[in-house]
Amino acid sequence: MKKRILGLGIASCLALGAVVSTNVLAESSDKKAKVATTENHPKNIIFLIGDGMGVSYTSAYRYFKEEGNHKIAPSTAFDHYLVGQQATHPEDPEENVTDSAAAATAMSAGVKTYNNAIAVDNDLSETPTVLERAKELGKSTGLVATSEITHATPAAFGSHDESRKNMKEIADDYFDNLTDNQQTVDVLLGGGLDYFQRDDRDLVKEFEKSGYSYVANKEELLKDDNAKVLGLFAPEGLPKMIDRDKETPSLAEMTTAAIERLNKNDDGFFLMVEGSQIDWAGHSNDVVGAMSEMQDFEAAFEAAIQFAEKDGNTLVVTTADHSTGGFSIGANDEYNWLTEPLHAAKRTPDFMANEILNGASAKEVLEKYIDFELTKEELATVTKVEKSKELEEIAGPIRKIFDARSNTGWTTGGHTGEDVNVYAYGPKSEEFAGRIDNTDQAKLIFNLLEGKDGKAKINDKDIPKN
Amino acid sequence: MKKRILGLGIASCLALGAVVSTNVLAESSDKKAKVATTENHPKNIIFLIGDGMGVSYTSAYRYFKEEGNHKIAPSTAFDHYLVGQQATHPEDPEENVTDSAAAATAMSAGVKTYNNAIAVDNDLSETPTVLERAKELGKSTGLVATSEITHATPAAFGSHDESRKNMKEIADDYFDNLTDNQQTVDVLLGGGLDYFQRDDRDLVKEFEKSGYSYVANKEELLKDDNAKVLGLFAPEGLPKMIDRDKETPSLAEMTTAAIERLNKNDDGFFLMVEGSQIDWAGHSNDVVGAMSEMQDFEAAFEAAIQFAEKDGNTLVVTTADHSTGGFSIGANDEYNWLTEPLHAAKRTPDFMANEILNGASAKEVLEKYIDFELTKEELATVTKVEKSKELEEIAGPIRKIFDARSNTGWTTGGHTGEDVNVYAYGPKSEEFAGRIDNTDQAKLIFNLLEGKDGKAKINDKDIPKN
Repeated sequence: MKKRILGLGIASCLALGAVVSTNVLAESSDKKAKVATTENHPKNIIFLIGDGMGVSYTSAYRYFKEEGNHKIAPSTAFDHYLVGQQATHPEDPEENVTDSAAAATAMSAGVKTYNNAIAVDNDLSETPTVLERAKELGKSTGLVATSEITHATPAAFGSHDESRKNMKEIADDYFDNLTDNQQTVDVLLGGGLDYFQRDDRDLVKEFEKSGYSYVANKEELLKDDNAKVLGLFAPEGLPKMIDRDKETPSLAEMTTAAIERLNKNDDGFFLMVEGSQIDWAGHSNDVVGAMSEMQDFEAAFEAAIQFAEKDGNTLVVTTADHSTGGFSIGANDEYNWLTEPLHAAKRTPDFMANEILNGASAKEVLEKYIDFELTKEELATVTKVEKSKELEEIAGPIRKIFDARSNTGWTTGGHTGEDVNVYAYGPKSEEFAGRIDNTDQAKLIFNLLEGKDGKAKINDKDIPKN
Repeated sequence: MKKRILGLGIASCLALGAVVSTNVLAESSDKKAKVATTENHPKNIIFLIGDGMGVSYTSAYRYFKEEGNHKIAPSTAFDHYLVGQQATHPEDPEENVTDSAAAATAMSAGVKTYNNAIAVDNDLSETPTVLERAKELGKSTGLVATSEITHATPAAFGSHDESRKNMKEIADDYFDNLTDNQQTVDVLLGGGLDYFQRDDRDLVKEFEKSGYSYVANKEELLKDDNAKVLGLFAPEGLPKMIDRDKETPSLAEMTTAAIERLNKNDDGFFLMVEGSQIDWAGHSNDVVGAMSEMQDFEAAFEAAIQFAEKDGNTLVVTTADHSTGGFSIGANDEYNWLTEPLHAAKRTPDFMANEILNGASAKEVLEKYIDFELTKEELATVTKVEKSKELEEIAGPIRKIFDARSNTGWTTGGHTGEDVNVYAYGPKSEEFAGRIDNTDQAKLIFNLLEGKDGKAKINDKDIPKN
């Protein structure tokens, strides 16, 4: 791992954010939204990222929210707060569709960079992040995710590395990168114990010595009330919502636990919450998992909004880093996206495949976890591979059963480049409206942290070219 | 063709639009956007529909606008005016992904209906449209499209029919449906001569007798200055922009010609402009054609905005009816959407296929119209089918060359159900902000025509369930 010293000062970074005073302000169309004024800067900022949550996902989730093939929910929790969209492309010499690392760096530091970069720019200089700046200004800080907490998105807010793959070094960073002689991130909740408890270093012990509580399951998390906490609930990523046992906290529970701790600071807080596995489901082309993770993320969003409504001084911004999988609502010439087959799944295809991989009979597993009768042909696609030693080989055909029954389409196991939605609520939420760039998120937040207005000007000069 | 009498009065229809006064208003983030006030109702309304123009299309077009695989334009003309999105699902007993007819009826009449319905509801009662209401109020009216002007989208603004397929009857409606003893639509520009000049009826002559100019090519259109005009520039749809000869007007030229005529009315006008063939390219999974039609539509949008900026009293709303094709920016695990291969096409794959169908050699046609050297394997995919008598059989492999080289993905030859963007500019544009339903478009416009405020309330009660 190579690192360079902090190349861009905070000041020069802030200069990137166009400062334009706005007189007439917009809020989301929700009647509960408060009217913001230029005098009213948020004390707390909660930034939520639905990883991979493109427009197809948020729309599909509206179809999914009501059971029954032809019932569509009038709205999701997100809908009320839609203010615009952001462009997501990276500044990578070889790729023009972003990965989560470059996108998270854009949103955390306001800098377009190469895919794989964790808060470093194209010269490998470390780029200061909004979380770090919040800490410098005396606020408390937190990172919450359902992936490893060292995964690309949270990593780009609380660490710096030339590669997202260096998850041990990123875990080290969370302990070693200090602000005023203290760890920079006060609350770390997610998966990834394997990167903290290692042969070469036991970061769990180091965090505990440094005043952090360590919690390893939901009960411990809910019992603890220390302002600083490291919660690692799985060796790597957490199970998807639909596959979780009662030991594992939900994203909403982790979000609420984080807010309760961070809110003890009179100077406010910055919290980043990631619904990490919407993207993972997209990569696997797993529509059951995708809807499970949308549900988990929506509940976390609602928890953030509920706090912000009560608090009155909290800005909530929610977006995605990119879309994943080329997911489409409808496929193969069918004008119907059927959600009943998806509601019939009691676990993800990967969970079922894992049981089969571990020796259970395909027929028994599918009958146990799927609430519709499989056709002989459907069953045969899975029994054919039930002796396989590869999870993917077994999971693939199970996922395809749900795709075919629901008319779900996919074009890739990777990401896609379309703009993603931006939702905002609270003081200064109007500044995130319209079509912005992903770097504008950080530029706006840097300005808000400094007590400036930071309306992003969407014109040719403001959006870096790729 | 069966028709029922007008079942819903204008009054009851208007009652559907929630009337909420708004004090603090938003504009798109563009600095040029004017601040609207509740006193300031637009005299003119231009409603543009990019048929099939989902988020993937508007984002892809930003990638496409600058030549070079790794250059992405900072913005399209649309971006500056993004205010939100709309949901698109129909209220059809059998399908929950909309077609263009149900979507156009939602936007023209504020009523969810079945796929295929042209401004009739699920009881087959005719639903009054915003164009008809504008005419009743003394405004001039126009329809502009690059499809047949009798195609679903324009049809649902100026006619009523139980099926979009009845294009002759829809043409009859344009002549026979009268408001104050005059035709309801003053300006009709697009394709579809075959539906007007028929053995059983010559509507061209009837329109001429009724005071309309008839124009059949660009020169005639530009020379004419009659307030009422029927312009039919092709037997069916117009050629796509990239395939057009100089006889055929662009969508921007038709839009400007329409505005010039309609603007003669001191009481103002309502104009619907459709970029019809973004959708057609999507149905064909033709990415070259899709970008061609985005270019044509963007120019028409710019013409509308330019007029509105000068006029100061014109509302421009732009949206899509749905997305088409499951189009994705990136496919097959590639994190790159390459536009150079698309810029290398001098005509659409369908144009090339047509020349081959008419006897030209595949090799010569492809060399003539494609600015990169085809591999032997690529060429072979087309020469293999060059003796086919089916356009689709020849066009398919040509389109796939562009898909493979650009990393474009598709999941369907039909529509998809994700929300589509809403762009707005001018007086009352703020009322279209946030996440609205497609029926809100008509509800808002009905209210604006009556001089009321019509902010759509986005909550459970306002969005009809499917």
